[in-house]
Amino acid sequence: MGIHKFFTSLNDLERIIRCPGRFKFEEHNVAAHSWKVSQYAMFFGTLEEMNGTTIDWKSLYEKTINHDFAEVFIGDIKTPVKHASPELKQMLAHVEEKMMEKFIVSEIPEEFQGIFFDRMKEGKDATTEGRLLEFADKLDQFYEAFAELKRGNTDLEFVYMYQTALEKLLRIPLPTSVAYFKEVMLADVIAEETQIDIYSLTHEIINKA
Amino acid sequence: MGIHKFFTSLNDLERIIRCPGRFKFEEHNVAAHSWKVSQYAMFFGTLEEMNGTTIDWKSLYEKTINHDFAEVFIGDIKTPVKHASPELKQMLAHVEEKMMEKFIVSEIPEEFQGIFFDRMKEGKDATTEGRLLEFADKLDQFYEAFAELKRGNTDLEFVYMYQTALEKLLRIPLPTSVAYFKEVMLADVIAEETQIDIYSLTHEIINKA
Amino acid sequence: MGIHKFFTSLNDLERIIRCPGRFKFEEHNVAAHSWKVSQYAMFFGTLEEMNGTTIDWKSLYEKTINHDFAEVFIGDIKTPVKHASPELKQMLAHVEEKMMEKFIVSEIPEEFQGIFFDRMKEGKDATTEGRLLEFADKLDQFYEAFAELKRGNTDLEFVYMYQTALEKLLRIPLPTSVAYFKEVMLADVIAEETQIDIYSLTHEIINKA
Amino acid sequence: MGIHKFFTSLNDLERIIRCPGRFKFEEHNVAAHSWKVSQYAMFFGTLEEMNGTTIDWKSLYEKTINHDFAEVFIGDIKTPVKHASPELKQMLAHVEEKMMEKFIVSEIPEEFQGIFFDRMKEGKDATTEGRLLEFADKLDQFYEAFAELKRGNTDLEFVYMYQTALEKLLRIPLPTSVAYFKEVMLADVIAEETQIDIYSLTHEIINKA
Amino acid sequence: MGIHKFFTSLNDLERIIRCPGRFKFEEHNVAAHSWKVSQYAMFFGTLEEMNGTTIDWKSLYEKTINHDFAEVFIGDIKTPVKHASPELKQMLAHVEEKMMEKFIVSEIPEEFQGIFFDRMKEGKDATTEGRLLEFADKLDQFYEAFAELKRGNTDLEFVYMYQTALEKLLRIPLPTSVAYFKEVMLADVIAEETQIDIYSLTHEIINKA
Amino acid sequence: MGIHKFFTSLNDLERIIRCPGRFKFEEHNVAAHSWKVSQYAMFFGTLEEMNGTTIDWKSLYEKTINHDFAEVFIGDIKTPVKHASPELKQMLAHVEEKMMEKFIVSEIPEEFQGIFFDRMKEGKDATTEGRLLEFADKLDQFYEAFAELKRGNTDLEFVYMYQTALEKLLRIPLPTSVAYFKEVMLADVIAEETQIDIYSLTHEIINKA
Repeated sequence: MGIHKFFTSLNDLERIIRCPGRFKFEEHNVAAHSWKVSQYAMFFGTLEEMNGTTIDWKSLYEKTINHDFAEVFIGDIKTPVKHASPELKQMLAHVEEKMMEKFIVSEIPEEFQGIFFDRMKEGKDATTEGRLLEFADKLDQFYEAFAELKRGNTDLEFVYMYQTALEKLLRIPLPTSVAYFKEVMLADVIAEETQIDIYSLTHEIINKA
Repeated sequence: MGIHKFFTSLNDLERIIRCPGRFKFEEHNVAAHSWKVSQYAMFFGTLEEMNGTTIDWKSLYEKTINHDFAEVFIGDIKTPVKHASPELKQMLAHVEEKMMEKFIVSEIPEEFQGIFFDRMKEGKDATTEGRLLEFADKLDQFYEAFAELKRGNTDLEFVYMYQTALEKLLRIPLPTSVAYFKEVMLADVIAEETQIDIYSLTHEIINKA
Repeated sequence: MGIHKFFTSLNDLERIIRCPGRFKFEEHNVAAHSWKVSQYAMFFGTLEEMNGTTIDWKSLYEKTINHDFAEVFIGDIKTPVKHASPELKQMLAHVEEKMMEKFIVSEIPEEFQGIFFDRMKEGKDATTEGRLLEFADKLDQFYEAFAELKRGNTDLEFVYMYQTALEKLLRIPLPTSVAYFKEVMLADVIAEETQIDIYSLTHEIINKA
Repeated sequence: MGIHKFFTSLNDLERIIRCPGRFKFEEHNVAAHSWKVSQYAMFFGTLEEMNGTTIDWKSLYEKTINHDFAEVFIGDIKTPVKHASPELKQMLAHVEEKMMEKFIVSEIPEEFQGIFFDRMKEGKDATTEGRLLEFADKLDQFYEAFAELKRGNTDLEFVYMYQTALEKLLRIPLPTSVAYFKEVMLADVIAEETQIDIYSLTHEIINKA
Repeated sequence: MGIHKFFTSLNDLERIIRCPGRFKFEEHNVAAHSWKVSQYAMFFGTLEEMNGTTIDWKSLYEKTINHDFAEVFIGDIKTPVKHASPELKQMLAHVEEKMMEKFIVSEIPEEFQGIFFDRMKEGKDATTEGRLLEFADKLDQFYEAFAELKRGNTDLEFVYMYQTALEKLLRIPLPTSVAYFKEVMLADVIAEETQIDIYSLTHEIINKA
Repeated sequence: MGIHKFFTSLNDLERIIRCPGRFKFEEHNVAAHSWKVSQYAMFFGTLEEMNGTTIDWKSLYEKTINHDFAEVFIGDIKTPVKHASPELKQMLAHVEEKMMEKFIVSEIPEEFQGIFFDRMKEGKDATTEGRLLEFADKLDQFYEAFAELKRGNTDLEFVYMYQTALEKLLRIPLPTSVAYFKEVMLADVIAEETQIDIYSLTHEIINKA
């Protein structure tokens, strides 16, 4: 086939639902998630740049746009599975890579294969752009959990997801972004009227950090 | 916790969608699938019994009711992933087993743990009941693909799923059931008015078998 | 036709929604409900057996798998209608029986008709298995109502459904199962964080019983 | 309570799905159906009036708006059940009437009860307005079936529904409306591009009539 | 084409969702909304008539049935857009009118065009019927917002929508209807068990009025 | 508020459905659409760059990510409305701009306002990046229509949308991209098995171009 096959496969990501199997008041698909991650990255990339960091914008946007494309092949495997053992995590990563490789070789026109290999590889590296991807990805998990708790979802999974995402956000080595999130954004978050006590859930983590 | 936690986890299987990420006119969840598999097993178990085979009914029904419970932990991992390599398949099976074990030890009251370990283990063994489970499980895949093709789904995935399920059904070592399926049921299947040419898709496989 | 028609009719039960017409945060279909009822029956059958009762497992599982099949013909008629008058209830039961009979005679191959007549008849009789079916069926109603209240559904229908199911569960003549439900499970139920005051709703009924 | 209870019960009809349990590409609720029936009635009432018939418009609109309100109490009972026996049909009608009566007496303020009793009674009588209601109600069934067949639904239920609605429409004693439907509208209907052969399905019935 | 085209366009209003883009626990379509508005108008028209006002029932019902038909052409444009400037509001009204005109001229048979022009024009005029339409339309907005708040929707949009609808209802020049709504219905509304504090939201507005 | 308000508004675009009011086998939201447009732009930007054009990647990705953000304020106004008159189109564009301005001034922290004004303005200008945005945006419309026709949607709206998007794509002043689309991709598109005759619909337009 060719790039037409690649383009139609994008549509599949509109049907991969995040956090499958849990009760949610609102579901999110991986395509829309990828877009929101790009938006968060645009903002925090700007913030970092204003504070003197050099941003490779092409790399940043390609990382955010492509970071979950591999879910076309493997779906949204549940997080506890992924973290069940380091060997499994590594093996799943390996399978993902192999399936991506096979897809690129069989569907992408030869002259584009090099570029695709480069773009589709794991984006969360130690570069500023890799960290911004990690930050933006976690921020979307934070917001997904927040929206459920706000609407009254009492499933402990979302309490846990909210607190885990918060903890991880506070530890990402991007001091400017983390400070802005912690000092400016969290103030607005905990000021919202919510069904679940967001203030306490949030402070419990901040105090531990 | 206790059995209450186990019972509420059953609800999760109503939200695990089969064949995630593909376009379907109708979606099916794992809970409803498990029920249909039990129904098919009831019929083919009866057929086999009428033809002189002894059926351990308790075992047969428990196999069908429980065969996909582990998807609570791992979700519906895409088939190509599962079959990407024998090592991965084995490792995923291992992880599944470990997560089930951990769940049973932490959630099931001690006096029931032995029984749960026994019931939740892989059911598709070489016993007649294990084969009937395999047959019934494949039959549901056959019917899911058939319904999509009948309604005009042109996604090649469902053509492939229909033919693969058919091929596998014809090879399961249950001669009476297979003969009934092939001679009685398929005649009704290919007589239906469908948007896709079911007659050809079916005969292509039968002729190869 | 034949058994193919019966098998495709199973799919219809995935589209019959329980408790039609009420606002629910999550809907349940009759196929998935039947599976959950089989799971509850598996547990309570085991519990009763451990306490010395003999269980006819084949009968128990067939009762649970088949108990709502007739909804294929009549849909999920609202409970208040069914109980509007004893004559209507009897007449609806009669119609249901006649439609099932007609279906079996016209769709099920002759050699299986006897078995189907036997399996599809009303399962909630005075046997232990009949009582376990009744218990498991009510337990699913209890859990459906509980999940709605937990998530903040203020429709009085679900308060009423929760309390009615609870009342009935406590009165089913299966002392071991009822005691386990009341002493072990309810403790976990009322300990959950819920939007509605489950503790009071539950104790109000327990104190009356 | 009072009229507030009546008003909130209207919302329930947005959740009663027509033709429950069948596979449909698009579902319709009873509230939206009632509105479409009012629209059809507006047109055919106008047509009849232009041809010299006197129309009691207040009665016509109240009949169409109210004709399915009773489904709040009984849901959408499957047609084969309703027609299983004349006794059952009569008894169901009786129950419906009693539940409506009970609702009016307990929820509607006393000064409005007489008016409500009058408005909520069966509307399909032998008056011109009763016939227009019957015509408009059947026309919506005709259109619902047509839309499914057009999109490729091969379920025989919809073929049967299409032909039955057509047959009944042609026999309603409103010669002007029937002629307009048959001569003007059907020409447009069979000229549409459809997945199923609408031309033949339609002519088969017209030729029999 | 002809009236067939008009009739199939009614189906489109079942897919136009009210208040698009906001999170809602339950969505409402324009067809069902139009039906509920007709029901409210039936009640308040009766109330006004009982108090001595003459009601033109044909006009009242046609106003309610047709008041949102133009959304077939323009969709449900967000309220803030509509009110962004008087010029835009006027221009949108003009476009709507032109599209309706074009539709009537090209789809409606000539002999019915005059009647359709008359029926489809803006219904919220200064007649009693126009005011009843306005009252009934706002009442549905009030109930839609109420249902969301009752179920725990904390989106400020619905708080604002609830209070705005309430304010406007209290000011419509139909003293009998407004008094009944304020004195009889609101008492029942604020007595309901709700997730959000309806009592305060309501009294804040009543006290200001 | 601040950036928190902006981030939560992104979620609203997951609920704005494209092409509202038409029957579709699959719906698409504006967030997922924006992501697919970014993916198409990544490919065609690469293709143009390989052919010697200089691409401002930061600008290209920001254009694609932001191009429909304004739908948060105005929703997805139906295309025929937008094109009803040049004055209306201009006035709607003006309102959109004003609402965006008001949003930026009230929600975006002052130090970011300049950047937001720049990013959120209309992206389809005469630069290469503006043309790539136009190309990618039309390509998604092409694919949305194609998928409906492939699955058997006979609504003429989608035939028209498919042909209009195709026509426009062929005329965008990006010769390399257009040639690749026409010569490479269309060959794969018309080779697919579809319910509707895609080959003819496509050639009719190509031959006219």
